[in-house]
Amino acid sequence: MRLGKMAPTMLTARFGQSVTPNAFRSYLAEFLSTFFYVFAVVGSSMSSRKLMPDATSDPSSLMVVAITNVLALSSAVYIAWNISGGHVNPAVTFGMAVGGHISVPTALFYWVSQMLAAVFASLVLKVSVVGQHVPTYIIAEEMTGFGASILEGVMTFALVYTVYAAGDTRRGTMGVIGPLAIGFIAGANVLAAGPFSGGSMNPACAFGSAVTAGSFKNQAVYWVGPLIGAALAGLLYDNVVFPSQAPDSIRGVTEGTVV
Amino acid sequence: MRLGKMAPTMLTARFGQSVTPNAFRSYLAEFLSTFFYVFAVVGSSMSSRKLMPDATSDPSSLMVVAITNVLALSSAVYIAWNISGGHVNPAVTFGMAVGGHISVPTALFYWVSQMLAAVFASLVLKVSVVGQHVPTYIIAEEMTGFGASILEGVMTFALVYTVYAAGDTRRGTMGVIGPLAIGFIAGANVLAAGPFSGGSMNPACAFGSAVTAGSFKNQAVYWVGPLIGAALAGLLYDNVVFPSQAPDSIRGVTEGTVV
Amino acid sequence: MRLGKMAPTMLTARFGQSVTPNAFRSYLAEFLSTFFYVFAVVGSSMSSRKLMPDATSDPSSLMVVAITNVLALSSAVYIAWNISGGHVNPAVTFGMAVGGHISVPTALFYWVSQMLAAVFASLVLKVSVVGQHVPTYIIAEEMTGFGASILEGVMTFALVYTVYAAGDTRRGTMGVIGPLAIGFIAGANVLAAGPFSGGSMNPACAFGSAVTAGSFKNQAVYWVGPLIGAALAGLLYDNVVFPSQAPDSIRGVTEGTVV
Amino acid sequence: MRLGKMAPTMLTARFGQSVTPNAFRSYLAEFLSTFFYVFAVVGSSMSSRKLMPDATSDPSSLMVVAITNVLALSSAVYIAWNISGGHVNPAVTFGMAVGGHISVPTALFYWVSQMLAAVFASLVLKVSVVGQHVPTYIIAEEMTGFGASILEGVMTFALVYTVYAAGDTRRGTMGVIGPLAIGFIAGANVLAAGPFSGGSMNPACAFGSAVTAGSFKNQAVYWVGPLIGAALAGLLYDNVVFPSQAPDSIRGVTEGTVV
Repeated sequence: MRLGKMAPTMLTARFGQSVTPNAFRSYLAEFLSTFFYVFAVVGSSMSSRKLMPDATSDPSSLMVVAITNVLALSSAVYIAWNISGGHVNPAVTFGMAVGGHISVPTALFYWVSQMLAAVFASLVLKVSVVGQHVPTYIIAEEMTGFGASILEGVMTFALVYTVYAAGDTRRGTMGVIGPLAIGFIAGANVLAAGPFSGGSMNPACAFGSAVTAGSFKNQAVYWVGPLIGAALAGLLYDNVVFPSQAPDSIRGVTEGTVV
Repeated sequence: MRLGKMAPTMLTARFGQSVTPNAFRSYLAEFLSTFFYVFAVVGSSMSSRKLMPDATSDPSSLMVVAITNVLALSSAVYIAWNISGGHVNPAVTFGMAVGGHISVPTALFYWVSQMLAAVFASLVLKVSVVGQHVPTYIIAEEMTGFGASILEGVMTFALVYTVYAAGDTRRGTMGVIGPLAIGFIAGANVLAAGPFSGGSMNPACAFGSAVTAGSFKNQAVYWVGPLIGAALAGLLYDNVVFPSQAPDSIRGVTEGTVV
Repeated sequence: MRLGKMAPTMLTARFGQSVTPNAFRSYLAEFLSTFFYVFAVVGSSMSSRKLMPDATSDPSSLMVVAITNVLALSSAVYIAWNISGGHVNPAVTFGMAVGGHISVPTALFYWVSQMLAAVFASLVLKVSVVGQHVPTYIIAEEMTGFGASILEGVMTFALVYTVYAAGDTRRGTMGVIGPLAIGFIAGANVLAAGPFSGGSMNPACAFGSAVTAGSFKNQAVYWVGPLIGAALAGLLYDNVVFPSQAPDSIRGVTEGTVV
Repeated sequence: MRLGKMAPTMLTARFGQSVTPNAFRSYLAEFLSTFFYVFAVVGSSMSSRKLMPDATSDPSSLMVVAITNVLALSSAVYIAWNISGGHVNPAVTFGMAVGGHISVPTALFYWVSQMLAAVFASLVLKVSVVGQHVPTYIIAEEMTGFGASILEGVMTFALVYTVYAAGDTRRGTMGVIGPLAIGFIAGANVLAAGPFSGGSMNPACAFGSAVTAGSFKNQAVYWVGPLIGAALAGLLYDNVVFPSQAPDSIRGVTEGTVV
């Protein structure tokens, strides 16, 4: 994942870069990683419900979904890291596009790959698992849609900020554990807000399960908050915390060694 | 683990490479790692049942088995990484053989080592633990064998794809956390489908516990799905996503640095 | 994070170093990381209570809070690592100031950033989550304040000692997993003493939730013990275990390779 | 941690090497790491019992102790890695002495440090926690002492083998995640056999809690099995799997790159 700004190019040239063989390999990598992630997350929710039908009221079930997020997101990001950047999430792609690290046409192809993968993963689960419905993200009864959007937005802000930090080449060898940090923050957020807003942070995952289950209730919560949070995270990281005009703002670089 | 294709050699020469001292050390490494892995996974299932006899209906027990997969597979892969490649799984070995990264005779010796280790680990548990049967993988009552095979195949696809990605030397320093990514995807899959198909992804583990328990019911589920999934993952990775004819398809390499 | 001692400078010069743009970026990094950490930790406690109102008497709830500490602290430290050192905790900042690795004015700005972030994170949770109070750290009924202070002090000692070890550049590439080690020791300590003293180790986290909840009962426990433990850890690490006068006391360095 | 064999030296010279300032720093590092580890492991067992008095019959409590092992051992090994080798366990020290990687006098000082730390950690818990007894490791009622010794021996074999692999400098950068692999295998083993033999693998931890609780029942189980397993692991690793006479038996080295 490069964080350097792209030189301004014409739209056609940009689109040309989005249909090369290498670009298609990126889309395939996003498709596979998102498929693995959504398969695990939606599947873990179905597992919990099978073991404990009133799973929404038990800390063990919350833990199952949160740990699945840690494990599946870390590995999904890891395997796509060197080819597509390992977004695995339309909100991350949006945050990267806002920061200018990916062109708009490429971002659109990423979105299509991620959405298709999420729907396909949910369908595989629906077809092969008998006697369980595909679950959708829900917000707690007493929560307002606005409150849930704020929670999802804050959590996605943290996630996208971590993605920016993990992919920053100025950090040197610290990038090695980047995919773990990304999975970790996602899991922490699920534990923090899962019972309140669902803890999605990923519009593709919410979309895929909603399509398969045929229920789009509260779908806006999983798009508005995350996209706003992602854009803010990208802008803040690039322009304030680690501006590219001040490469020496990262300590390890100035001092010739990364700590 | 090398991903370069082997030059075509005659069968006898290949077999000769499979009986050198270094090759025997590889088989011993596979034996030990598979022993540690199967000991932990089968043992954790026995632990859960001792603590909660109806363990199959509790999220905590699912978590015990899933976390054991993460911990045991990561460390078992890690300790064999530099000598045998850290397969610890006949499906992984099969996927590597399909991609041409290991010769057929060597793969057969790997299989024998893995199977013996799995049987031996189950026997040690059977002999030393009193009052508990060695459990076998089971599929949920309402599941069809076909549906379970699909689940096991999809999960093994994800696992073997991750093994390919983790062992790809073109990824540079990202390989350092490869064993963790492999353990993580295995654990995520157990959480996703454990209560439905058992979540094995490893024919040796299913075979070892079945031999010791004397029950081969549904054994085919744990062989057909995983082997097909493993072969597809290897072919896809090598030929489409990261073809060796296009080493510059991995970003870090072209740009002289790995992100 | 550098561990070299600062040359003695005049107070005004020191203060001058604390109001540069780079310094402000450090404070912002501390603010963001502490916000993410406190949001996750306080949120996870609220999640547990929603799922199980008598959460204080269930191992699953303890696990939820402990794992949140691991995940959130590792990633929060990681993203601030190269800019502010990744303290995310006034006790860590205090321990670093005692060891002379950060000037007193800078430490004060770190404290202000951490406190504001903790209060702000608690407020976001209070505003967006309906029907749940923001919880504060509590000590078990049968515990004395003195006993709880000892526990919090010992745990913070372990945490700050680990922070010192993780940030020591003489360790070479081992620093890469430093943020994980820091999150791990925090989580282990929560599992060890959470039901007895609360397992805070972080005065900002205790302060932020107390301000929002309006209850400062036992607040001293979360300041006195941690600050004393942090100071002792810094002094012991710098002067006895890894004195800077003996750089060859770290093995990897003398032998030209890090093990 | 170096794995090269020491040249034969006279006993007095060896003893002289064991009382240098650097050696004392090693003992202090072992003391601190073992203290942190035993504090967390024994404390987590007390936490579980406070939350659920019949904790020995619940998978959540098993998980609490196992995860504490992962977190505490990984970080304890990490912080002592470059100075003492990060044994944190008399069985590991024994296995290293058998392989000739540490002299007998030094090993004895390591043992004393580890034992004192374990007793001290248990005492701190006993003094500061009111209303809870310090627990000791126990074997399940239906288990024989012999069966439990076999289990503890097999698990310590796996642990010490992993320690050897993690500390092998011929593995290059893979050593970076060595402390994690060590903590992971320990946690996997606790999940596999905790309810049967206790899952100690560490004579110091068993000794410290036994001294504080005043009960040495079955103490032999936690010494005989682990020490035999540790010795076998060291001999097997050094002489068969990765003999130092064949440095090219590790793949990464021959090919100039570590995979």
